[in-house]
Amino acid sequence: MEFTTTGQIIECRAAVSWAIGEPFKMETIQVAIPKAGEVRVKIVASGVCHSDLFFLRGGAGPQVFPCILGHEGAGIVESVGPGVTSVAPGDHVIPLYTPQCYECDNCKSTYTNICTKDAMLQMAGFLSDGTSRFTCNGQVVKHNMGCSTFAEYTVVNETNVSKIDPTAPLDKVCLIGCAIATGYGAALNTAKVRPGSTVAIWGLGGVGLAAAMGAKKAGAARIIGVDINPAKAEIGKMFGITEFVNPKDHEEPIEKVLVKMTNGGVDHALECCGIASCMKAAFAACKGGGGVLTLIGLAPLSEDVPFNAYQFITGKSVNGTYFGGWKSRDQVPKLVEDYLSKELMVDELITHTLPIESINDAVDLMKKGDCVRSIVKF
Amino acid sequence: MEFTTTGQIIECRAAVSWAIGEPFKMETIQVAIPKAGEVRVKIVASGVCHSDLFFLRGGAGPQVFPCILGHEGAGIVESVGPGVTSVAPGDHVIPLYTPQCYECDNCKSTYTNICTKDAMLQMAGFLSDGTSRFTCNGQVVKHNMGCSTFAEYTVVNETNVSKIDPTAPLDKVCLIGCAIATGYGAALNTAKVRPGSTVAIWGLGGVGLAAAMGAKKAGAARIIGVDINPAKAEIGKMFGITEFVNPKDHEEPIEKVLVKMTNGGVDHALECCGIASCMKAAFAACKGGGGVLTLIGLAPLSEDVPFNAYQFITGKSVNGTYFGGWKSRDQVPKLVEDYLSKELMVDELITHTLPIESINDAVDLMKKGDCVRSIVKF
Repeated sequence: MEFTTTGQIIECRAAVSWAIGEPFKMETIQVAIPKAGEVRVKIVASGVCHSDLFFLRGGAGPQVFPCILGHEGAGIVESVGPGVTSVAPGDHVIPLYTPQCYECDNCKSTYTNICTKDAMLQMAGFLSDGTSRFTCNGQVVKHNMGCSTFAEYTVVNETNVSKIDPTAPLDKVCLIGCAIATGYGAALNTAKVRPGSTVAIWGLGGVGLAAAMGAKKAGAARIIGVDINPAKAEIGKMFGITEFVNPKDHEEPIEKVLVKMTNGGVDHALECCGIASCMKAAFAACKGGGGVLTLIGLAPLSEDVPFNAYQFITGKSVNGTYFGGWKSRDQVPKLVEDYLSKELMVDELITHTLPIESINDAVDLMKKGDCVRSIVKF
Repeated sequence: MEFTTTGQIIECRAAVSWAIGEPFKMETIQVAIPKAGEVRVKIVASGVCHSDLFFLRGGAGPQVFPCILGHEGAGIVESVGPGVTSVAPGDHVIPLYTPQCYECDNCKSTYTNICTKDAMLQMAGFLSDGTSRFTCNGQVVKHNMGCSTFAEYTVVNETNVSKIDPTAPLDKVCLIGCAIATGYGAALNTAKVRPGSTVAIWGLGGVGLAAAMGAKKAGAARIIGVDINPAKAEIGKMFGITEFVNPKDHEEPIEKVLVKMTNGGVDHALECCGIASCMKAAFAACKGGGGVLTLIGLAPLSEDVPFNAYQFITGKSVNGTYFGGWKSRDQVPKLVEDYLSKELMVDELITHTLPIESINDAVDLMKKGDCVRSIVKF
């Protein structure tokens, strides 16, 4: 299949982020031809994630700007650069912020899914040759998380893209590109939630609800949702939450409430807020002798969390997840299959669908906690 | 078998600790008759451990005093209280600071070895009826860690004692009561050191060297010892250390030295010093994507360690060990068997053997780092 744009620079719309704290600005950008090992993708839809907010707030510093954010998208391959073999024009794909090169030590390891091949370049906002494919008003605009799905057309490394079943609705399965994979995998692959266990989940956004789904799939007996938005109690049930606790309803610190509720602490705490004080509380709520805290939410990169050393000695542990521990190119297509066979809920996470031009409204909804997941469409 | 002392209060020697910061004082104490479910043991020998120093320095607060420390002993059962079935007078035993009641949730769990049945009482310095069996000059003296092996006779709960092969030399295998079990088990059971992996061990005292032995047994490819005492390089080799690094020899922080030496970080860091700054450095030295820090050394109970949240997200984790994760009564006898069949080194850890009256000299040796393990004998 060949599109009329093949071999040409594409002019298209994008929500560009120019600096820390500034709202998205709709711009016309130029998207260059994909180079060797690269794939140009027409983005159909993209979820708006707290990690986008993390960058907007300066969590990773000012040097990421100007850039095109967005890492929870889905689209159709428009063209490919020389040497690309795993996808072809017309393929339906999900861009991956966690690449899989199959070559680095980590890709060969069974202990991690974090590909290191182009990690530093990706963090710097460039593709694997160290440059960007985006310009706007004559200025280079950086990539972000190897995806940049808030552009109508994006270019990604072949290692950052996964071919999926073409019958899957792109404006739904885009969420498998981040929230679903991260939360669901965190419970299954990283926390390794134990059958019959008690789980507490901090933050019932898209990731937290997906984590609840993972905990349920793993056979947890109790799944306690912790959120300051009482509206999350109801939607939580749909995803497997069996009890709901609002820290605002209690004078005691939430960790004490949970320790009492569970007669000594939870087996698994899953932290999806990315807030240091929540992480500390979640650790304190874990059971001595086997309690595991899994960090999922992204805190500012320099944030240290003061965990009590003796609590490790008495049998608590802490781990963390990146993209739910999935080997991305291998496993994202399977998650899409699970969605198509109704084993994995996705649609239920989507509370708002907006045109890309309204992306700042999606950000406002997220800041207020008034949504689960918003999708922006081109 | 019946001893002449059966059914009588025993007067004997003990190294009593009266208050934080004070040296041991040799005293004549009275040891009461064991009550139901209790065992009175004639201690033959006891190792002197950093955890004793931890208590002496006030790490667990002033309320533990006056007490009889020591939790790395071995001896012979002198008499038993009503209902005791697992040991009998004349049996050779190792007292256990980690009991195993077989009844509490944790004893039934496969995720932890931390028995909770009498945990609060043990921490308070009492046996399971909430009282002490020791008096000195008319004053009640508390138990410590359920063992109190710095007394010639001690009384322990039946749940805190393990019957061992009577041919094992008690003045050697006493170390299986703490250092050996803790370090060896930390590597095997808690860290689950991976075959072919790179391991770094902070602190080559008794626990650290036993951890090296465990790492070697697990098939680690590189075992890097980290200690500020250069003399530890030589003894380290005997226990499997393949490389030695003295932080004092480097201007760069030790974590940077290790990351360079290992091309990105170690797979396993084992912290045996109980020092927050070492824990933080050990975490930083772990490999992103699978690196595991295992805390073994005891820090003051209130000590928080600021671990960077993002490093968990990128695949590091932290756990901790208590008594090396062994189910104590089940597994200590097997460790003694491993020693007798020469699979487990113990004698090589012992650098000094002193009479109990010289216990303060053993403490001085430990403070100076001039010993590996000192044994005091009655």
